[in-house]
Amino acid sequence: MKGKVYLVGAGPGDPELLTLKAHRLLRNAEAVLHDDLVAPEILKLIPSTAQIHNVGKRCGKKKILQGEINCLMVALAASGLRVVRLKGGDPLIFGRAGEEIEFLRRNNIPFEIVPGVTSALGAAAAAQIPLTHRRASSALVLITAHRSSEHRVSEKDASDWRKFVASGATLVIYMPGQNYSDIARRLTSAGLAGETSCAVISRATTRHQRTHRTTVLDLHRAPQFASPTLLVVGEVVRLADPAAMVEEFVVPDLSPRKDSLLPVTLFKTFLSPAPRLRADEEPIA
Amino acid sequence: MKGKVYLVGAGPGDPELLTLKAHRLLRNAEAVLHDDLVAPEILKLIPSTAQIHNVGKRCGKKKILQGEINCLMVALAASGLRVVRLKGGDPLIFGRAGEEIEFLRRNNIPFEIVPGVTSALGAAAAAQIPLTHRRASSALVLITAHRSSEHRVSEKDASDWRKFVASGATLVIYMPGQNYSDIARRLTSAGLAGETSCAVISRATTRHQRTHRTTVLDLHRAPQFASPTLLVVGEVVRLADPAAMVEEFVVPDLSPRKDSLLPVTLFKTFLSPAPRLRADEEPIA
Repeated sequence: MKGKVYLVGAGPGDPELLTLKAHRLLRNAEAVLHDDLVAPEILKLIPSTAQIHNVGKRCGKKKILQGEINCLMVALAASGLRVVRLKGGDPLIFGRAGEEIEFLRRNNIPFEIVPGVTSALGAAAAAQIPLTHRRASSALVLITAHRSSEHRVSEKDASDWRKFVASGATLVIYMPGQNYSDIARRLTSAGLAGETSCAVISRATTRHQRTHRTTVLDLHRAPQFASPTLLVVGEVVRLADPAAMVEEFVVPDLSPRKDSLLPVTLFKTFLSPAPRLRADEEPIA
Repeated sequence: MKGKVYLVGAGPGDPELLTLKAHRLLRNAEAVLHDDLVAPEILKLIPSTAQIHNVGKRCGKKKILQGEINCLMVALAASGLRVVRLKGGDPLIFGRAGEEIEFLRRNNIPFEIVPGVTSALGAAAAAQIPLTHRRASSALVLITAHRSSEHRVSEKDASDWRKFVASGATLVIYMPGQNYSDIARRLTSAGLAGETSCAVISRATTRHQRTHRTTVLDLHRAPQFASPTLLVVGEVVRLADPAAMVEEFVVPDLSPRKDSLLPVTLFKTFLSPAPRLRADEEPIA
């Protein structure tokens, strides 16, 4: 009997943001291959009888090759197991699922893709940022700060950023890294006005969530939050609730963290009020 | 006692693609305001004691104003109820949540945003299209075919489409409408090559799902599927499984539908094989 592989999105972090389907599949998995970004509370759903393989590489030391993940996945399914390949967020966005799918097809392994809440949506919900808005942005662009197989910025990327910036779309930058000065430079080189609002959101939807709203000009002064982080850029960020952003810092975090900030700094950052919108009486689309 | 509003994403269609949180909130709702796109199976989760208001406008006759939705939502919460404002997909993408949030803030109604699986991700998962791919596309752009408050294509939109096309990003067009010739013309006017792959996906993740893969040049010949539909455009569409796209039509649908197609037409459409990718031995990012 042949097994099957389920490429499953684990959502942005909060275990309650798993889909019902992801939850059911995890509870019935016989083998799970997961990334490092998946929350421990989610991994606890896996039956104790199942094989669990951490195939992420963020834990630092090990360097697992994509080909090794592919082979392991196929071998487990070929031995008849129900395999869940669990990825943070949604499996089809920046997750190299394309390569895994191709390998599964080539080896005639039945598979199914189960979408998840991608991190951009989790972060926006937590920070109360409408990603599109009739009067601010009619498009959403999801990009990464660096390509997976190379560390320098390519000419093509720089040119693409210019196009995205020129469109006025909301940009969500996955994996922006910790070098905010560099990201800010790339955004302004791409033509973005320094006063454009942006927000760094760390560990969105988890209890460790941190949010910092600023402008591209002041982005270099943003605190170094724990990864994973996301950067949301665009006028819609001004529609985020400033109170909500300050609130999380009002309860002081007494543990020594390099990303802790004095409340006074934050109140200064959030002093400018969010723009008010008019009541609207047009028919909805 | 004050109530609370939950702006909740209902996901792309399949009730199992609700998040656990959305499921819990619906089961405990005292009032629900929902869009037309929300599946009947999902609405069945709402307790019989709850007020249910369909505030969508697709059902045709009625024209509910956004301001009326806002007022109803606030009135219900102000009377102490747990209100779920249920939107198809994710609430923060093309859903006018920004305006509802602003109205809730202005009226001091506590609220929370619960993200959902946006339709683009549901459709891509169902059609097995990796939305980003290291060798095909490193960005994803979500756009609508028309702005909500105006029916003609603005100069700004046309100019934006040119930028998105030039970037080579995967485009997902929400609400493309039924005039495929028009969409194809806009895409080619924006500089897209006629041979670029695209897929029309109708009622993604539901049992009524229909998928048609074609090129921008031949898009005008695509069947008129039932709404809601999505159009995915870009080289990544060639990575979709042609077999999977044909499969759904192998079981003949005997009910008379204007979108039914002869299998022979489909086999012709899907004759060209999906490109093969090389096995990959680079470390994953």
